[in-house]
Amino acid sequence: MPSTDLLARRKKLLGAAYRLFYADPVHIVRGEGVWLFDVDGRRYLDMYNNVPHVGHCHPHVVKAICDQAAVLNTHTRYLHENVLDYAERLTAKFATGLDIAMFCCTGSEANELALRIARTVTGGEGLIVTDFAYHGNTKAIHEISTESCPASDRPACVVTVPTPDCYRGPYRGADAGARYAAHVQVAVDTLRERGIKPAAFVIDTIISSGGVVRPPVGYLKAAADIIQAAGGLFVADEVQPGFGRTGQHFWGYEADTVEPDIVTMGKPMGNGHPIAAVVTRAELTRTFSRDDHYFNTFGGNPVSCAAALAVLDVIEKENLQRNALEVGEYLVAGLQSLARKHDVIGDVRGNGLFIAVELVSDRAARVPDAAVAGKVVNELRNRGVLTGAIGPDNNILKLRPPMVIRKAEADLMLSTLDDVLQSGIE
Amino acid sequence: MPSTDLLARRKKLLGAAYRLFYADPVHIVRGEGVWLFDVDGRRYLDMYNNVPHVGHCHPHVVKAICDQAAVLNTHTRYLHENVLDYAERLTAKFATGLDIAMFCCTGSEANELALRIARTVTGGEGLIVTDFAYHGNTKAIHEISTESCPASDRPACVVTVPTPDCYRGPYRGADAGARYAAHVQVAVDTLRERGIKPAAFVIDTIISSGGVVRPPVGYLKAAADIIQAAGGLFVADEVQPGFGRTGQHFWGYEADTVEPDIVTMGKPMGNGHPIAAVVTRAELTRTFSRDDHYFNTFGGNPVSCAAALAVLDVIEKENLQRNALEVGEYLVAGLQSLARKHDVIGDVRGNGLFIAVELVSDRAARVPDAAVAGKVVNELRNRGVLTGAIGPDNNILKLRPPMVIRKAEADLMLSTLDDVLQSGIE
Repeated sequence: MPSTDLLARRKKLLGAAYRLFYADPVHIVRGEGVWLFDVDGRRYLDMYNNVPHVGHCHPHVVKAICDQAAVLNTHTRYLHENVLDYAERLTAKFATGLDIAMFCCTGSEANELALRIARTVTGGEGLIVTDFAYHGNTKAIHEISTESCPASDRPACVVTVPTPDCYRGPYRGADAGARYAAHVQVAVDTLRERGIKPAAFVIDTIISSGGVVRPPVGYLKAAADIIQAAGGLFVADEVQPGFGRTGQHFWGYEADTVEPDIVTMGKPMGNGHPIAAVVTRAELTRTFSRDDHYFNTFGGNPVSCAAALAVLDVIEKENLQRNALEVGEYLVAGLQSLARKHDVIGDVRGNGLFIAVELVSDRAARVPDAAVAGKVVNELRNRGVLTGAIGPDNNILKLRPPMVIRKAEADLMLSTLDDVLQSGIE
Repeated sequence: MPSTDLLARRKKLLGAAYRLFYADPVHIVRGEGVWLFDVDGRRYLDMYNNVPHVGHCHPHVVKAICDQAAVLNTHTRYLHENVLDYAERLTAKFATGLDIAMFCCTGSEANELALRIARTVTGGEGLIVTDFAYHGNTKAIHEISTESCPASDRPACVVTVPTPDCYRGPYRGADAGARYAAHVQVAVDTLRERGIKPAAFVIDTIISSGGVVRPPVGYLKAAADIIQAAGGLFVADEVQPGFGRTGQHFWGYEADTVEPDIVTMGKPMGNGHPIAAVVTRAELTRTFSRDDHYFNTFGGNPVSCAAALAVLDVIEKENLQRNALEVGEYLVAGLQSLARKHDVIGDVRGNGLFIAVELVSDRAARVPDAAVAGKVVNELRNRGVLTGAIGPDNNILKLRPPMVIRKAEADLMLSTLDDVLQSGIE
């Protein structure tokens, strides 16, 4: 049990708007690799946090932050090599054309900048997004975060398309990609009927809040073709799938043949140090900069870039993209094997180390079971494994561990989940 | 001269929207206290940067960041003492009532959260701001950043009032505060005529981009009374004046008898580590949280809070607020003495270590001289002193050095400025 004193202090000092995870919140004091330790020295396997991408407190990243913080931390209105070295390494991870990097501090700010560029360059205002999306918490980004912004609060310039979900949505066959993409054309037409020029289609390339959904093959490319033909841009939100998490690719969008106009990224980029970015094409920044310039006080500072450079070092040196693929596949196989034993598992969807486990009360009818998901998340926490439940029906276990997880740790996750499901929670 | 290679790399990698300071940009590689050092080992007196509030690379702050980064960096959905310890120390800097702290990463995000709370709590949309304000770079905050957002781009819910400038504006006498505040009532009426309920009056308590203007006595209190009587909130943007910079007070608004509903802060808070906050009243967060909750991935994390705690330690242990008062007064006296010698100095306005020097082509007519200001800024840079020019007419030297500056360093600033002005730049 956490100290009631801490809970009381939190309520008194942070106010009513903050939320904690778990019925019995955890008081974490130390992190190392895939492990978190609470105040009593109890360890938890972190199956949830993607921000500590290369592992909690990775010594190479910590050293990079300390070394740079001791020497200089200014901003991008002076010349400094770190921001250029990082921009060079980052843009090298993209196909030719996506060769400009612009820096900010959070995913919300990256998406703000993406929309600012898209609207300036296209002269349009219209935005198309999936119907249970989360892209950030500023006002403009809240308006496209359809997960939390009710339809009644959205401006006319925001139009939604269905999450291209082949487990729960209407289209499931080989033509699902094309059929879902057709809704993007409907959205373009809706905007036009409203007299609004499209500016962008914005999508998580693995749709996180919508249920950790990987779009069917061909969907992203077809959607991009439609928005680009309408004069808008394709914005790939890589805040969660990026930096090798999907195992197969470094960026989620690479699972399709699409070429985004703008890519946004954040959370895992500095392993917890606040840094985020927009990557785009040079000609878009030229058009954008005719009317506007860009500055972000902390964005691209030498310490943030040192952290981000160190994260890239570790991803490469420790082969973490390959590890995500291997351990991800191992976890999915294990979860599928649990699904054969436990009817409550309706579906297992894996994309490297970005995995969804759908919990259902009726497997044939695919009826979501939020109550069971809540119990499983809390029981896992009680047994030392940290996860979370998401999705439109709050019934999906989201597994998104640090990229350094090994098979032995995956085994612990699998056996603990097996125990929880066997314990009669169903 | 900076390496042309660096300039070329910057253009290629960061694109057209980024800007550098100075005709001959500086390539800074190291910082210590009030000093910055370029790649050739040349040192510059930093008279401009308020972000390294307690001095560049202060060892106590660096150690706090390193120690915490090595142990844990998570988020506020787990319990952790740093965010509570910091919230406690921070809210203790405010009068009773302002006892809740909420955390984000940048001043833009803090102002976004302030507007979100103000609009939710009041049910209004209308915002009143000064006519050459900068509050941040997200879309909603850009709309109230009247410095860069042209009137034609502002929504009907944003109404401006004149910067309460007693040097350059229409009102200069003892009743200037009341006469400027009357414009806030006009703005409230304008919103009502447009059918828009007021949500907030947002103001830098030392108005930075408007010309480092200290509002005349009584203005802030009268403006707060008007907006609160109209059902709106008073939001004090302390991103620049806060944390003791004005010398007389810890927060800029304390120069008046006003009690803000919401205070926002950012830049100096973590000495360069990205952290920002909103401080407000408990009942406002209760109303806000009825419809909404708040989470910011990096906001309030243990490392950011360790940095911010260390900044407060240094401000207190090194008596930096008192230093700001003493060295600030010393600098202002020295600048006033230069003004007696150089007609180009039209006005010197001091608020601790937040000082404006108005450069004019005609002192009696107060004609702003941007060309001279640009030359002075570049000549100071060439002689090893970093400043910047701001204001609606770009003719104001803004001096806002790290709070650890001493009189000997102020002397160097003064003698260098004297040299520059004597060298025939006029």
